[in-house]
Formats: sequence, structure tokens, C-alpha cells
Amino acid sequence: MVGHAFMGAAHSQAWRVAPHFFDLPVRPVMSVLCGRDTERTAAAAERLGWAESTSDWKSVLERDDVHVVDICTPGDTHAEIAIAALEAGKHVLCEKPMANSVAEAVAMAEAAARAAERGVRAMVGFSYRRVPALSLARDLVAQGRLGRIHHVRAQYLQDWIVDPAAPLSWRLDKEKAGSGALGDIGAHIVDATQFILGDTIREVTGTLQTFVSERPLASAHSGLSGTAATGQTGPVTVDDAALFLARFAGGAVGSFEATRFANGRKNALRIEVNGSAGSLAFDLEDMNVLQFFDGTEDPAVAGYRRILVTEPGHPYVDAWWPAGHGLGYEHAFTHQAVDFVRAVAEGTDPAPSFADGLQVQCVLAAVEESAGTRTWQQV
Amino acid sequence: MVGHAFMGAAHSQAWRVAPHFFDLPVRPVMSVLCGRDTERTAAAAERLGWAESTSDWKSVLERDDVHVVDICTPGDTHAEIAIAALEAGKHVLCEKPMANSVAEAVAMAEAAARAAERGVRAMVGFSYRRVPALSLARDLVAQGRLGRIHHVRAQYLQDWIVDPAAPLSWRLDKEKAGSGALGDIGAHIVDATQFILGDTIREVTGTLQTFVSERPLASAHSGLSGTAATGQTGPVTVDDAALFLARFAGGAVGSFEATRFANGRKNALRIEVNGSAGSLAFDLEDMNVLQFFDGTEDPAVAGYRRILVTEPGHPYVDAWWPAGHGLGYEHAFTHQAVDFVRAVAEGTDPAPSFADGLQVQCVLAAVEESAGTRTWQQV
Amino acid sequence: MVGHAFMGAAHSQAWRVAPHFFDLPVRPVMSVLCGRDTERTAAAAERLGWAESTSDWKSVLERDDVHVVDICTPGDTHAEIAIAALEAGKHVLCEKPMANSVAEAVAMAEAAARAAERGVRAMVGFSYRRVPALSLARDLVAQGRLGRIHHVRAQYLQDWIVDPAAPLSWRLDKEKAGSGALGDIGAHIVDATQFILGDTIREVTGTLQTFVSERPLASAHSGLSGTAATGQTGPVTVDDAALFLARFAGGAVGSFEATRFANGRKNALRIEVNGSAGSLAFDLEDMNVLQFFDGTEDPAVAGYRRILVTEPGHPYVDAWWPAGHGLGYEHAFTHQAVDFVRAVAEGTDPAPSFADGLQVQCVLAAVEESAGTRTWQQV
Amino acid sequence: MVGHAFMGAAHSQAWRVAPHFFDLPVRPVMSVLCGRDTERTAAAAERLGWAESTSDWKSVLERDDVHVVDICTPGDTHAEIAIAALEAGKHVLCEKPMANSVAEAVAMAEAAARAAERGVRAMVGFSYRRVPALSLARDLVAQGRLGRIHHVRAQYLQDWIVDPAAPLSWRLDKEKAGSGALGDIGAHIVDATQFILGDTIREVTGTLQTFVSERPLASAHSGLSGTAATGQTGPVTVDDAALFLARFAGGAVGSFEATRFANGRKNALRIEVNGSAGSLAFDLEDMNVLQFFDGTEDPAVAGYRRILVTEPGHPYVDAWWPAGHGLGYEHAFTHQAVDFVRAVAEGTDPAPSFADGLQVQCVLAAVEESAGTRTWQQV
Ligand SMILES: NC(=O)C1=CN([C@@H]2O[C@H](COP(=O)(O)OP(=O)(O)OC[C@H]3O[C@@H](n4cnc5c(N)ncnc54)[C@H](O)[C@@H]3O)[C@@H](O)[C@H]2O)C=CC1
Ligand SMILES: NC(=O)C1=CN([C@@H]2O[C@H](COP(=O)(O)OP(=O)(O)OC[C@H]3O[C@@H](n4cnc5c(N)ncnc54)[C@H](O)[C@@H]3O)[C@@H](O)[C@H]2O)C=CC1
Ligand SMILES: NC(=O)C1=CN([C@@H]2O[C@H](COP(=O)(O)OP(=O)(O)OC[C@H]3O[C@@H](n4cnc5c(N)ncnc54)[C@H](O)[C@@H]3O)[C@@H](O)[C@H]2O)C=CC1
Ligand SMILES: NC(=O)C1=CN([C@@H]2O[C@H](COP(=O)(O)OP(=O)(O)OC[C@H]3O[C@@H](n4cnc5c(N)ncnc54)[C@H](O)[C@@H]3O)[C@@H](O)[C@H]2O)C=CC1
Repeated sequence: MVGHAFMGAAHSQAWRVAPHFFDLPVRPVMSVLCGRDTERTAAAAERLGWAESTSDWKSVLERDDVHVVDICTPGDTHAEIAIAALEAGKHVLCEKPMANSVAEAVAMAEAAARAAERGVRAMVGFSYRRVPALSLARDLVAQGRLGRIHHVRAQYLQDWIVDPAAPLSWRLDKEKAGSGALGDIGAHIVDATQFILGDTIREVTGTLQTFVSERPLASAHSGLSGTAATGQTGPVTVDDAALFLARFAGGAVGSFEATRFANGRKNALRIEVNGSAGSLAFDLEDMNVLQFFDGTEDPAVAGYRRILVTEPGHPYVDAWWPAGHGLGYEHAFTHQAVDFVRAVAEGTDPAPSFADGLQVQCVLAAVEESAGTRTWQQV
Repeated sequence: MVGHAFMGAAHSQAWRVAPHFFDLPVRPVMSVLCGRDTERTAAAAERLGWAESTSDWKSVLERDDVHVVDICTPGDTHAEIAIAALEAGKHVLCEKPMANSVAEAVAMAEAAARAAERGVRAMVGFSYRRVPALSLARDLVAQGRLGRIHHVRAQYLQDWIVDPAAPLSWRLDKEKAGSGALGDIGAHIVDATQFILGDTIREVTGTLQTFVSERPLASAHSGLSGTAATGQTGPVTVDDAALFLARFAGGAVGSFEATRFANGRKNALRIEVNGSAGSLAFDLEDMNVLQFFDGTEDPAVAGYRRILVTEPGHPYVDAWWPAGHGLGYEHAFTHQAVDFVRAVAEGTDPAPSFADGLQVQCVLAAVEESAGTRTWQQV
Repeated sequence: MVGHAFMGAAHSQAWRVAPHFFDLPVRPVMSVLCGRDTERTAAAAERLGWAESTSDWKSVLERDDVHVVDICTPGDTHAEIAIAALEAGKHVLCEKPMANSVAEAVAMAEAAARAAERGVRAMVGFSYRRVPALSLARDLVAQGRLGRIHHVRAQYLQDWIVDPAAPLSWRLDKEKAGSGALGDIGAHIVDATQFILGDTIREVTGTLQTFVSERPLASAHSGLSGTAATGQTGPVTVDDAALFLARFAGGAVGSFEATRFANGRKNALRIEVNGSAGSLAFDLEDMNVLQFFDGTEDPAVAGYRRILVTEPGHPYVDAWWPAGHGLGYEHAFTHQAVDFVRAVAEGTDPAPSFADGLQVQCVLAAVEESAGTRTWQQV
Repeated sequence: MVGHAFMGAAHSQAWRVAPHFFDLPVRPVMSVLCGRDTERTAAAAERLGWAESTSDWKSVLERDDVHVVDICTPGDTHAEIAIAALEAGKHVLCEKPMANSVAEAVAMAEAAARAAERGVRAMVGFSYRRVPALSLARDLVAQGRLGRIHHVRAQYLQDWIVDPAAPLSWRLDKEKAGSGALGDIGAHIVDATQFILGDTIREVTGTLQTFVSERPLASAHSGLSGTAATGQTGPVTVDDAALFLARFAGGAVGSFEATRFANGRKNALRIEVNGSAGSLAFDLEDMNVLQFFDGTEDPAVAGYRRILVTEPGHPYVDAWWPAGHGLGYEHAFTHQAVDFVRAVAEGTDPAPSFADGLQVQCVLAAVEESAGTRTWQQV
């Protein structure tokens, strides 16, 4: 595994926990953790439960006892590491957004296609697909319970930099992150809605906004927080918010918004889908719940149902606790690890594939393009 | 109509509005308003839209052009006025709680029975029965959608006297009010749950509590508010909160609570019913909604449904606005007036009858009794 | 008053009820109701409580005893009636959208400006401004409780024509209605957000969508419902849904959506505003509630507060019931009538003025324009 | 650890995960798993991650390398194992309810007191104390943010045996379980409310109810589910529901209900507390949220706040994810393990102690007693 901060911890937990709740065809071994700094990486390996650590990820690709490379670093490093790993014959699980540009993503998708021919697998970490409520949403759409889809409404609302004194972390640096809210959290709602609909976005028009353009330099950071070093500031080179309208291939219209300035919304990935036969609504801040409206019911008793997605039979749920005992944020990563291991062991392609990751990248690029040209852009 | 403050205004609105939204067999005429003070009553008649006013309600009973007496005064006056009105051949709509004691209620029920023989009708103002969501709740239970009823959970939570400086209004005076939270708002949940279940409470055990036993004397009051006169205080002679457990004739167990000390709950009449086939939940603070759980559904998509009780076909709703356009507090009084007028015109007995009012009074008395004896009491 | 169906009933209720709850400087008299059909109008006058009726609205303008003309007809008639009324010296309350085109709206605003010089007043019926929760929202923004505004998110979601068998009412006919969801309900969210922010939309990019392009002809209709005549169909000439992005003069970015295809949403006018110091959220399906996030609080206890906008001191609320006793849909019309009467009596200009109505019309036109050109349009 | 089904899995997860997220003074080693059946226990040890397994828990008490005994078996075994373990000098973490009778609980509390003198610690597994939202609730009460406490309203609502065909598991057998809903889930709300208030229940009156008295025999079971063997049935010897009223030493009145027949409520542990200065509300089905009403605020903006208890600084939360990334059911067990290990390492008494467990047992016994005598009982 490369990277050992926020996602590093989430993925470590997934590898650690998965075999104790799910039947896995092979048992993952947490062998080597990679970072940039030898000492900090060693400490992280100890804390996160990895047997060894190194500051040289390339050396790991030469080891025969390593079969999987799990990439948990900022976006600017994904392409290089992923392509090298695939070429070295390692299965790759790569965090989202898959890349910082379409060009990188194309190269990665090509590498993945080549690798697949040799039985080497690649997957992108759009973890929210594995939140049981969103898996159930996809199932209901696939079963036709919503009919023809008319509307998609998707927002990913956070507020961690609404304070102008929040420091310049790598997420605010275009070099590292590729884009701001757009690629970081906008990518999730693009993937999640396409996944739920089983459809793709065909064209978009959007706008990007940076509300605070200069911030204190960060002295240290991890996850979403950070500590501001005194005195100096630097420019924010990414968007604070991205809004766009979209049209799906299948005829649905969509409204999307990703922002880090929605005061009071901490992690509100919200999705609504309206179809001719029914509707769905989801909010990650209440992640064990899926709201479902069945439009075919007697209107006298019809209404949005609060389905607690913890019943036996609900996706992934059987492995855990009895009905009503909710799951948390990191469970989706465990499910992701399980599906990845199973696909690799069965010799099938895990989803979302690098081709899916590329397609999302194209949507993001089209949004950026449209924000510049101020017109609709084909994906 | 007797009484012209809170309920006086609500009932006036009902009489005024009902004929414009509902087809009524006869058109109510708002003729005489009665109060204690000549001047204040005249001003109220002007404001509330009554043709005349008087400070002598007895004189009104002699008038041939008055057919209905609507009693909106504190409980200590209900028995006297209602019995006299019924004996004078006037149909009576009397506010709840019907009386301040079982003895009074018995006399009233007897008077109503005698009057009914002469085609003179009597009804108690348990207005919440006519909130569309609660009417729908009753219908669903009657249709068997909940199966056998196991549980009732009913609370009426307010907070208007949580401040010890809130003045001593008539509602805190046993002479006037009979009891405190128990009769004022506890009566509503007793009636509403019995109405929804189509069942009666057979035995209870309860406790009463007065948290603030001495309060400033009120200089003036109306509705739930009032102004404190400076200096003097007086004793609170009623309960601030009443809690009791109950067993229904049909086998359900119930938990009841009425309080004026639930900080932050303004008018939270909340009812939950759990049956073998489904469940219901209601909260008056979101009065256009009924939550319904259909336990016979596929567990994969089962969940409490938020039914917006504003659809064509829902009780009383057709008379008003299109779906989704909510009703307010006073609409229940309009529905009550409509049902009363229709029953009177059709020569049938309106519900809840004075016999129903007596039965509720017996439940309240049993709660008070059990609070003293500290044992269960039969109703 | 002209028009006697849905809005006719709502406005009649407002005129009827207002003087009994609010102190008005003059007492409105419900004199003449105008319609197209003599008989149906006479029946409506009886039902809605108007003294007289006529099928010739022009004749009414000549009467000295009529001081106010209240226009409750479809949009294609607003300009003609309003301008004639203003020129006849009648104060005008005109339903929204003010007109079916910018040209009409310009003429109306000019007529209103001329009339104002003679002390004759004009107002547009954006009734939701008078929902207490939205008035409170405006007050909180004006007081600076939200700081600098970053985001507006506004949706007006209905579902009354999601069924392709729903008939072609006038609302689906461009000749009569001007546009579809855009002008009918989109106009409300444009006005409401601009009202709350005290700011105006400067540019937009949007898209319109008609999901069902052919529908059964209607034999009769009223409000949102209707009856389908057998056999024949006709083309839907307006949008079923309108989505657009917006930029406000003050720097906020907005996302707007108006649709009649949001299955299960009956009347969900939802608005969220995020500012540097706090946020607001509102949903008309729970209209007595305003959600408020105070971003200046200790994070340990910060959270969206569910304010029940029924407290003494809340806008318009004192006139009604004690805390926690909710208002319904039509109360906003009563408040509108009250504010209109007071402005007229005081000789001040009521808001929203015809100039405001024109500005909203310009936003709607820019959205339509952008949907054609597929680029951003200045308002 | 003894017991390897539902709680066995939850506790195993806790021991496994705790050291990777929290700094622990000593690192727990998962050495021996005990069960009744050699083979099934060995399989469980493999799955749950224990180094060894045995069907003889007594043998484990003799091992020097075992320092902690974690008891995850049904209640009838707690006293014997716990007392033996404490006497053997092992620290004990024992699941709730601590025992099946007051007599057993007294013996356990005495054993714990004796052990404490030798530095051997004992703790009861009232895990919900460690849900961050409930820890925060306790903190707010302790800080005086609620003022004087007037009301407690606590319900633990489940529905897993509403179906009469659900089999007779050990939880429905008085021999094994001691009582039904009362001890299983009623114990949690007794502990949680006393914990939050920092107060104890002084007297109670209650009632017990068994709705389905005969059920199919179970062939196998685990957690809350089970498989019914064909044909035979047996008697349910415990309560399906327990309701009681309570008075706390500090003057608050409480209403409690524990049931397995609340159709549609899967794991609804709901607690409301109303005080003179504010109120709290919690529902385990939305476990990352605490509702808080601050009664000292300006009424114009006061309302129940939905605090997402995932902020830095909230109890236990810093160890996990950024704000808004929710925790799940099992996290409380991890927190419990952390607090237990820290207390043991620091040589302090962990809470809840066996004395606390005994006190809860006395409350449960008083409820049972009152259900028989039909009068209030002192605890
Ligand atoms: N699936 C999901 O929901 C989420 C995905 N992510 C994605 O995960 C990735 C990592 O994000 P976080 O863990 O939040 O960031 P972070 O800032 O918490 O951690 C980044 C880690 O990468 C390491 N690193 C940075 N550059 C490196 C390099 N050149 N070589 C080796 N190690 C390097 C850092 O030392 C650190 O350990 C990003 O692509 C992000 O978009 C992040 C959060 C949630
Ligand atoms: N159905 C419901 O939801 C509600 C029912 N009520 C019931 O309505 C009744 C009146 O309560 P409110 O209107 O809230 O009280 P209030 O204090 O607002 O008004 C009481 C009115 O009765 C008049 N009054 C008092 N004594 C009188 C007498 N001896 N003779 C003639 N008039 C007298 C007063 O002048 C005043 O107009 C009570 O029985 C109360 O329980 C009250 C509120 C809600
Ligand atoms: N403020 C709000 O929230 C709402 C505003 N409206 C607006 O109110 C207006 C009327 O809508 P609704 O009442 O819903 O429509 P409706 O279809 O219920 O009623 C329209 C009325 O206008 C009459 N009418 C039509 N053409 C006429 C003409 N040429 N001369 C005289 N009368 C004529 C009809 O006979 C009918 O009485 C529209 O402008 C609409 O946009 C409608 C609903 C809500
Ligand atoms: N803290 C909490 O929230 C919860 C606590 N519990 C408590 O945990 C305890 C266990 O409950 P569950 O795990 O749900 O039950 P379960 O039925 O899932 O598992 C019981 C386990 O104990 C074993 N066992 C039974 N008798 C035994 C004996 N004589 N010797 C050795 N092993 C024996 C069984 O083989 C099984 O592994 C109970 O005291 C229960 O009240 C249960 C669920 C939640």
C-alpha cells in the first residue's frame, strides 16, 4: 500500500477486517507500507499494522510476495504508480479520482487493458458504490422499480474550508490534486449516479468558483485537516465549488453540485433520482438509510419510505450485525476490498474499472471545459 | 358561542370558513357571542365576526333564532352551560375536557341522552380527531392494515410553563381547570388513541408531578400566554406533568405522557401504534404527515413511509387545496364544525358524544386515583 | 376579483379571514367576482362569498365602489386586465408569474409606475414571501447571521403530471401559460431566493425538458387536476422541467430546478442558503419549519436547528395561535392581503412590486434564451 | 473470551481494531476463545482471529498468559464465570445484563470488590455509553446545559419476534436469559439514562407483557435470528415487552419501554431528556446524531439542533475519520475495549463497574416485582 494518512488508514482497516466477516477465497496479508519519509512511514506501518515499510515504492514492485498494490496517495502520483505496478504484474486498487488529467487516465486505462490480457486486474476506489444503501439503490433501478429515469439531483456538500484561515493543503493545489471540489468530491457523485442509473453522462454545462483565493500555508496536514504555519499565505489554485447540469445518454437530466463551502454540511453526499414509477433519495450523513417512493402504490398510503438498509438480504449486510445495527463510513472500504479480492481470485474484472475511471475523468474534464467556454460540452 | 379567547377565535374561524369549502345542508349564522364582561365581549364580537354580544349566556337560551350553543370557556363552566342549553333544546358543541369531574360528566352525559330523545345533539370538542392524518390513522387501523394492536405510545409535550416566572393562569388553578396537563392535553391523547384504535382503556397506573409549585399571579391572560402582575405569587394547584401506563380492552398496552415541561417541544402530540401487521407514527408538530410501516411488505424495501396526508381522497382534504399544500392547526376545527352541522342536520348523533366525553373523564379520574393509591385502577 | 378556481378560492379565503386576525386600517369588502361564464361565475360567487358576479371584468373597472382588482386568472390575461385596472385607478394585486413575456411585463411595470404617481398601487402575488419561515429566512440574512452568501440551492418539485395520462390543462399550453414548470413554479424560487438574499440574479445557464410531449385533451380543469376527455390528444407546448445555474450580483452561485416530474414530491419548494457565517434550509412540505445552522457556535454543539416558526415574535405569527400550532398553505395569502391593504392605506408601494415582477420575468426569459443558445445569458 | 456468536464477533472486532486507532498502554493479544463445542469453537477462533480455542473455560483461568476474561455468553453463565475469573486474578469484562438475578449480581459485585483490593478490575458491557452521541449527552448534562432535569423518556424498540413463527431462542427462555425485553434491552435504557443524568432510579411501577406465548422450537440460533425446527413448539417464559414509570433520586420522572414488538423499529434505542435549561434527544437508528435544544437561546432562532457527533473534540471521534464520516454499531465496543484497557493499565476502576451492574439489576427486579404486586416498588 502506498500512502498512509486518511485513505491509508481506511484501506488498512479494510484489509484487516475483511477476512473476519467475509469468506474470502484468499487471505490478504498486509505486507509493505510505502511512503516518502522513512521514519514516518515506519511509524505508520506499526500503527496501521503493516509488517514492513519502505520509502521506495518502486522496490516493492520487484517483490514476488506482493500481489496487490493499493494506491492511497494524492492524484498526481496515481498514473505513475498504477502503470508501473500493472506492468510489473501487480493487481492495482487505485484511489479516486483516478488521475489528474484525461491524458493520464487514458494511459492508465490502456495499461489496465493490457494487464487484463495477462490476468492482472485494476479497480478504482469509488468506495461509495459499496455503501449498502447505494448498492440497493442501483438494484432497485436495475429491477425497474423506478421506471424510466427523469431526474437526477446530486450534491456533495462539505464545509471544511469555509473558514478563510483554513490552511493550504495539497487538496487546494492544482499540481497535486488536479482540481478542487470537482475532482475530490464531484468525482464521487458522477460515479455514484452513473452507477445507480446504469447510464452515462453525455453532456454538461457547469461553473467553477473559488471563494477564498489566498490562504495560509500549511505546516502539516492529513486527511481534511491541517495546521497553519504562521505568517505566509499562498494562492488557492483549484475550485472551492463546482456546479453543473448534465444530460444522460438515457434521457435523464441532472443537476450536480460539489462544494466545500456548504456551512454545516459535513459530508452530505446527497442523491435523488426520480423516475416514472418511483423515486429514491439518499444522504451520506444518514448512511444506513435509503428513501424510496413507490409511485405505483395506492396514493392514500404512498410516501417516501425510510428503508433502514440493515436487513438480512440487503447488499453486504448479512456479514455484519442483526437488523438495525448500523454500519459506518469505513465499512464501504471493507466491501470494496472484498469485491476486489473476489474478482482477482475469480479472474474477473472488478468494477469500477480503469475504463470507468477514465469515463468519470472525461466528465470532469468536460465540466472544466464548459466552465471556461461557458457552453455545453460533450463528454 | 360562549367564550371568546383562544378557542373562541378557533371556533369562530371554523364557523366562518366551513360553508365556503364544504357543502353544508344548513348555513351557520354567527349570531351571539357570550362573555363575562360586556365591553370586552362586544369588542370580541366585532373582531371575531359575531352579529351580537351579551354577558348573559342564559338569556341566549331563550332565543328561538339560536339553535346551537358552542362552549369555549374553561372546564368549570361546561356542565352548567351544556346542561342548561340541552334542556333548552339547543344542540351543544362543548370544548374538552368535557368536565372537571366524573360527577359533572355523568350529569352531562345524562342530559345529552335525554336531549337525544328529542333530537337535540351534543358533541365534545376533541378536535384532533379531525386532523386528516389522524383520521387516516383510524381508517388504516379499521381496515386491518395494522393487524392486532400490541402497543400504543402517546405523548403530548409542551413547554409553555417551563419558565418558573410564567404566571398563574386559570389552567394552573384546580378550581377552574379540574387538573393540569392531565385534563388539558392528556385528555387529547386519551381520546385520540381510543379513537384510532376503536378501543377503550380498561386500566391505568400513573403519576402526577408539579415541578414549580408557586408562581406569580397573572394580571391578564388568554390562550396559553399571560402577563405576570408584579410581586405576588400563588400556589399551583394542578399537575405540570402526568404519566401513565394503560391496558386497552383489546389487549394493547400503552404508555402515555402529558407535560408542559418538555423544553423545546411546543405542541408535540405524538402517537405511535404498533400492530402485528404494521405501525403508525404521528407528530402534531408536522401535522400533515402520517408515518406508516407496512409489515407485510418485502423487507428489502419496507420502511416507515412519510405519507403527506394532502392527497385527493384523504379525509377532509378534497375540500381544500391540491396535493402537497398543507393544512394548519385551525382546519381541524372547521372539519369539526362541518361534521357537527351535518350530524345535526341529518338527525344523527355526532361523535365524540358526551358518552365518549364521560368515558375519557373516567380514564383521567382513574389516573388521578392511581397517582394517589400508587396502584393500578380500573376505568 | 377575476378568476374563481384555485387562486380564486385562496384569495377569497384571504380577504374573508384577514380582518378577523389582523388589525387593518380599512376593511375589505368582497364585492364583485368576475369570470368568463355567467352561470359558473354566479355559482362561484355564492360559494366563495362574493356579493355580486359578472362575466365582464371591464364593467367592474367603471364602478366607483370597487377600489382593488385582484387578478387570479392564467398568465395570458394578466397584462390586459392589470393595465386597464391601473389606468382606471384601481389598486391591483396580480398573480404570478406577472406576465407571459418580458414585453408584457415591461408594459405592466410602466403602467404601475404611472399609476404610482397617482397613488394607485400594484403588487405581484409571490405569496411564499409571506410564509413565516421564509420571512424569517430573509430577516436572518438581512441581520448578517449568514455572513457573506456563497451558495443558493433552490428546487420546486412537484409530480402532478408524471402520469402520461394526465390531461392537457392550460398550464401545459404555451399560449395560456407562457411556459411550463419554469414560469409556474420556477418563478417562485427565483423570487423567493432573491427576496431572501436581498440580491438579484445576474446571469444564468439552463435547460428545459419536456418528458411527455403529447397528452389527452382536458374536458374540464381547475387548480392542478383535471379530467381527460376520451380519445383525442394534443401537444404539450411547454417545459415539464427547467434546470439552471445562476450567479447573483453579490457573488453567490445558485442551482435551480423546477419540475413537475419529481415522483413523490407533492409541493417541495426547497431552498438552502450557505453563507460564511451560517446556513438555512427550508421545505414547503414542512412549511412551519426553518432549519438554521449557526456557524459561529462552538462546533461541539453546532448543528442545523429545526426552528418551529410559530413563536411569538416570528413574522405574522402573533396574529394566530400559540407556539407550536402550525399554519397552512393559505395563510400566506392572508398575510399577502394584509400587507397589500396596509400599503395601499398607508400610501406606500407594496412589495413585490411590478418592477420586481418584471425582473423575475427577465430571469425566466434569460433561462429560456440560454436553453436555446446553450450558453450563459445576462439577465 | 467466552462466547463466539453475536457479541463474540463484536468483541473480537473491538480487540482487533482498538490498537490501530487508539494509543493503548498495553497491546491486547487475542489468545484463547472458549465455547461449548470443540469443533464449532475452533472454527470460530479461526474466523474471529483468536490464536487458540477450547471448550473448557475453566482451564483458561489457570493460564498465566491470560490477563483478561471477556464474557460474551448468555446471562445464566455470567456469575459463575465472572466470579471464578476474578478469583483467579483475571480482569473481567462481562456482557450485560450482568446477571439473571439480584442474588447473582450481589455475589458478582462482592467478588469484584474483593478483586479490586488486589488490583483486579471488573466492568459491565453497557456498550452504548460509548456511542459518541450518548457520551456527549452525558457531558452536556454534567456541564449543566440542561439545568435541572424534569423528564426522561426512554424506549428500546425492536421487532424481531413480531412474527409468531419466529423460533424460541435462548432469549425467550427465562432459565437462560433471566427475563425478556426487560433484561435484554430494558437494561440498556436503564443504564444509559442513569449514565446520562448522573443519577439513579429510586422507584418504579411497571408491567410486563407476553404477546405470543408459544413458539416453534429453534434448531439453531445466533444473535437475534434463528431457524425454526419443524413441528414442535414450546412456551415463551419471558416478557415480550416491559413498560415502566420511574422516579429518579434527583427529582426527574421517567417513562421507559422495552419491546420486541414495535413493528418497523429495528433497533430504536431512543432517549429524550428535558431539563429546565434545555433538552436532548437520541435515536440509535441514527446513531451519529444528537438532538440538542438550548432553552436559553433567543426563541426566534431556538430549535432542536441536529448535532452530527463526528467533530474533532467529540468523545472518541478524533481517533477515527474527518467530520461527517459516521461510525457504526461496533465502534462502541472498540471504545469500551479502549477504556477498559486504559483503566486496567492505569490501575483505576473502569465504569460501569459491577456495583453499577448490580444497581441496574435492582431496577430490573423492582420492575418485575411491581408488575406482580401492581404497585410502585423502591429500588
Ligand atoms: N474513496 C474516498 O472516499 C476517498 C478517496 N480519497 C483519495 O485518496 C487519495 C489520498 O487522499 P488522502 O488519504 O485523503 O490524503 P492524505 O493527505 O491524508 O494522505 C496522503 C498520503 O499520501 C502520501 N504521499 C503523498 N505523496 C506521495 C508520494 N509522492 N509518494 C508516496 N506517498 C505519498 C502522504 O505521505 C500521505 O500518507 C486521494 O487520491 C484522494 O482523492 C481521499 C479521501 C476519501
Ligand atoms: N380542542 C382543543 O384543542 C382545545 C381546547 N381547549 C378548551 O377550550 C376551553 C377554553 O380554553 P381557551 O379558549 O384556551 O381559554 P382562554 O383562556 O383563551 O379563553 C377562555 C374564555 O372563556 C371566557 N370565560 C371564562 N369564564 C367564563 C364564564 N364563567 N362565563 C363566560 N365566559 C367565561 C373568558 O372570558 C375567555 O373568553 C377549555 O375547556 C379548554 O380546555 C383549549 C385549547 C385547545
Ligand atoms: N401564488 C401562487 O402560489 C399560485 C399562483 N397561481 C397563479 O394564479 C393564476 C391562476 O391560476 P389557478 O387559479 O391555479 O388556475 P385555475 O385554472 O384554477 O383558475 C383560473 C381561473 O381563471 C378563469 N379565467 C381563465 N381565463 C379567463 C379570462 N380570460 N377571463 C376571466 N377569467 C378567466 C377561469 O375561469 C378560472 O376561474 C395563474 O397566474 C397562476 O400562475 C396559481 C397557483 C398558485
Ligand atoms: N452490549 C450489547 O449491546 C449486547 C449485549 N449482549 C449480551 O451478550 C451476551 C451474549 O449474547 P449474544 O452474543 O447475542 O448471544 P448469541 O446467542 O449470539 O451467542 C452466545 C454465545 O455463547 C455461547 N455459550 C452459550 N452458553 C455457553 C456456556 N455455557 N459456555 C460457553 N459458551 C456458551 C454460545 O455458544 C454462543 O457462542 C448476553 O449476555 C447478551 O445479553 C448481546 C447483544 C448486544
